[in-house]
Amino acid sequence: MLQTKIDNSNIINIRRIDNIKTLIIVAHPQIDNSSTEQFLKRGAELVQADWHHLDELVTFSIAKERQLLVDAQRIIFQFPMYWYTAPASLINWQTKILSNKFLQTSLSGKELGIVVTTGQPAKAFKTGGAVGYTLDQILTPYQVLARQAQMKFLPIFAIYQFYYLSEKSQLQLLMDYQRYLSQQFPDSLENRSQWYLQYFTQHHLADNDNKNLIKATFSQITQELDNAQTTLNLIKQDEDDTLE
Amino acid sequence: MLQTKIDNSNIINIRRIDNIKTLIIVAHPQIDNSSTEQFLKRGAELVQADWHHLDELVTFSIAKERQLLVDAQRIIFQFPMYWYTAPASLINWQTKILSNKFLQTSLSGKELGIVVTTGQPAKAFKTGGAVGYTLDQILTPYQVLARQAQMKFLPIFAIYQFYYLSEKSQLQLLMDYQRYLSQQFPDSLENRSQWYLQYFTQHHLADNDNKNLIKATFSQITQELDNAQTTLNLIKQDEDDTLE
Repeated sequence: MLQTKIDNSNIINIRRIDNIKTLIIVAHPQIDNSSTEQFLKRGAELVQADWHHLDELVTFSIAKERQLLVDAQRIIFQFPMYWYTAPASLINWQTKILSNKFLQTSLSGKELGIVVTTGQPAKAFKTGGAVGYTLDQILTPYQVLARQAQMKFLPIFAIYQFYYLSEKSQLQLLMDYQRYLSQQFPDSLENRSQWYLQYFTQHHLADNDNKNLIKATFSQITQELDNAQTTLNLIKQDEDDTLE
Repeated sequence: MLQTKIDNSNIINIRRIDNIKTLIIVAHPQIDNSSTEQFLKRGAELVQADWHHLDELVTFSIAKERQLLVDAQRIIFQFPMYWYTAPASLINWQTKILSNKFLQTSLSGKELGIVVTTGQPAKAFKTGGAVGYTLDQILTPYQVLARQAQMKFLPIFAIYQFYYLSEKSQLQLLMDYQRYLSQQFPDSLENRSQWYLQYFTQHHLADNDNKNLIKATFSQITQELDNAQTTLNLIKQDEDDTLE
């Protein structure tokens, strides 16, 4: 099944993976000092997502900002969490750009994602942990916003203590971030495989003699995963039957 | 029991009810157009709570702002909710004033309250309602803040659709607001009675010939409530015994 997808893909001309037009609304008061944001920006470029940094704007036109939102299919709010909330620049922008009418008529069916960076470890964000609340709980305001706008709220993409990550983990994070920006949800095996195929064909095959090798190898891996998934489903079905 | 409290109270000299020093951090970008805030400000004055309006400050000294917090026993964040979060002025102030060290060493044991105004009705803030989330859920960031600072988080004081309230309801709200600012928690019958006694002695008896009448009447009412409470407790105890 995945094999046919490779054969049909028109490798070089795909600009946006899965044809998802993504707008990243970035709020960060000291972005030049943030190596995390520079790192993420490179990832956003690789998948042709639009990067819109609010703190750089001296002033903004309500109409133009709204048009950016209307033109996007996936809208991402990206920010460092200060005292368990977004920076003032995002709050200020929200207050000026959003209205009940705009929210209720113009964003329906789009996706809303949150990319949040924090200096605290993942284990802090649970009952009994140092923070004591989950990010889902803390970022409730954006879930309410998505609900009001009839947008689909994506699972929160959290980056914990970026500085402590090994280089390998940072690269893994970069791939995950790019998938968050441009992969179809849900994050299923099939959607993931399809995304990787498109990504590798765009970024590696154009200027690489080994393109057939990479293609074949990756195709083989996904085929194996596909088979494994089928087997798992059979086992699961068997268990269900037993239980009945 | 309540009677003796009246006899011991030195009526006119009490400046702050229950001796609670309360600081209200107000964030509202258009406070002059807000009759709600003007109304609340009058209430704050009546109980000698300090009113600190952030949007008026052109600049502020970190040291002085921190000292205000250190000097207060009860700290209130008061704001209209825009898109399910506090206004940018409060977020900006928080970012500049708070630090991990300050939070962990200077606010322990104090109380943190939230006074939030919203144009939506109370019934919207529940699962299945128009907003779909409770104010407790939406305002989680402040609960986390209180937890981090080892402060006691007070029940949220919400003002829904102030304009639609009847004059009588507005006056009731004003009394409740004043109690929120200056009454001991928990909001028990005893704490409430004690607060009302002090409040009436301060505000009515000084310039009123009928002071003894008011005093006697109110004392009688609280005495009756006290008796009723005792009876209720006895009944409840009886039920508990039966269940055992």
